[in-house]
Amino acid sequence: MKRENLIAQIRQKESFLCIGLDTDPSKIPTSLGKGPEAILAFNRAIIDATRDLCVSYKINTAFYEAMGSSGWNILEQTASLIPDSHLRIADAKRGDIGNTTRQYAKAFFENMDFDAVTLHPYMGKDSIEPFLNYTDKWAIILALTSNISADDFETLELKQHEGRLYEQVIRLSSSWGNSSNTMFVTGATRAEELQKIRKIVPDHFLLVPGVGEQGGSLEDVWKYGNNKDCGLLVNVSRAIIYAGNGIDFAEKARSAALGYQSAMKLLLQHND
Amino acid sequence: MKRENLIAQIRQKESFLCIGLDTDPSKIPTSLGKGPEAILAFNRAIIDATRDLCVSYKINTAFYEAMGSSGWNILEQTASLIPDSHLRIADAKRGDIGNTTRQYAKAFFENMDFDAVTLHPYMGKDSIEPFLNYTDKWAIILALTSNISADDFETLELKQHEGRLYEQVIRLSSSWGNSSNTMFVTGATRAEELQKIRKIVPDHFLLVPGVGEQGGSLEDVWKYGNNKDCGLLVNVSRAIIYAGNGIDFAEKARSAALGYQSAMKLLLQHND
Repeated sequence: MKRENLIAQIRQKESFLCIGLDTDPSKIPTSLGKGPEAILAFNRAIIDATRDLCVSYKINTAFYEAMGSSGWNILEQTASLIPDSHLRIADAKRGDIGNTTRQYAKAFFENMDFDAVTLHPYMGKDSIEPFLNYTDKWAIILALTSNISADDFETLELKQHEGRLYEQVIRLSSSWGNSSNTMFVTGATRAEELQKIRKIVPDHFLLVPGVGEQGGSLEDVWKYGNNKDCGLLVNVSRAIIYAGNGIDFAEKARSAALGYQSAMKLLLQHND
Repeated sequence: MKRENLIAQIRQKESFLCIGLDTDPSKIPTSLGKGPEAILAFNRAIIDATRDLCVSYKINTAFYEAMGSSGWNILEQTASLIPDSHLRIADAKRGDIGNTTRQYAKAFFENMDFDAVTLHPYMGKDSIEPFLNYTDKWAIILALTSNISADDFETLELKQHEGRLYEQVIRLSSSWGNSSNTMFVTGATRAEELQKIRKIVPDHFLLVPGVGEQGGSLEDVWKYGNNKDCGLLVNVSRAIIYAGNGIDFAEKARSAALGYQSAMKLLLQHND
């Protein structure tokens, strides 16, 4: 997906919502039955109920891998359910050297037609570059994550570079591609850090998890992180997809998504 | 697999060889045909021809994911071909927060019975700990990798901790588990750094890629990295599995593996 198309979608829908399909077989309504087919039915219902309210879906591959090869099959089928108008993110958090990374790029960008993959920066440029060689595809690089133990390494101060490790990750890796093929993951639970990040990458999109169940504030993310093109994709997973657990789960998910979209609409309008 | 069983295998076979099954459909002998079944036949032949010469097999998941759900099926089948006597490593380089990491642990440790998974440390303790909660399973944490761009982040010097990022990764993450459930990836191309690493973790096993096609020296890895229990698993992938390309590919792979095992035998005997 091209950057301008993503921006156009955000303006048209008045939304920068990404919905995370972290679909856990133990959490879907019992009315759907069990097994991989139930997961697919759940995902289809969620997508149908929310597609006009969001601009992206993020599929957490772990939940599908945990179901074995039939889960991988459901991953493929779910990816193909997502409309072309939406940024399809494989939240796979991969990262390996060039030879291997090319295989991952093939899996997600060629076989499954995802638009974007989340990536670990630890191994450096070798592990990111093959994803940047595709036209209209995106590398979404982990920078400052929303979990508590992000402080173990991500926020360590460096001797020869200004600031912390995650800042150097953004500074260096933003030079490998550009704002049309690279985004960064920055957790909503550390919204004030977004000010620092915006000084390093004023134009890039940021994928922001941690709003919803993890307690991050949408308003703070907007306040500290927005740019002239919006520049934000805020992901919500559990607070939307598990909003209900009965036969009306899709309606409940829509209501929850509408709540986020309405809040986003106000923020976007205020910006104009 | 228990640590003492791994050590017993190394002593019995006079080998600390791990063979990497980075099986690429475009590189296997044409005599095997094409498609996922050919990959499985190739893997079976390699395992049968080399199992007495190595103590571990490492399966690079990317090559299987690139084949889609049928590839994942071959990954599962290949894992079950590896004898119980061998440490089964999923070289998956995963890393995510707790909720998701538990799904990855389920995929590799419960569904597929791997003994070990390679992991990214970037997100900290949350992303490693669920793997340490399994009995007789191993987290193999990326520390200093063998690729050129390891210098982008892994070797950055830190302000508040001694040494470089990868040293702090080892120092901190070795405290989350112990030498019976944690190993570290340290590339053979930086063998002299192993001296520093041994000061931090004298007892842990190190998984060392980069010998063979990547040009690392087995002798240097041994010299700087061995400990009283050997403490090393040296991985060789392409230089063994693609040693031949004709109908005698398995014999050629055996010869290549025997070359490494013979060299390891000398090093181990010299140590006694």
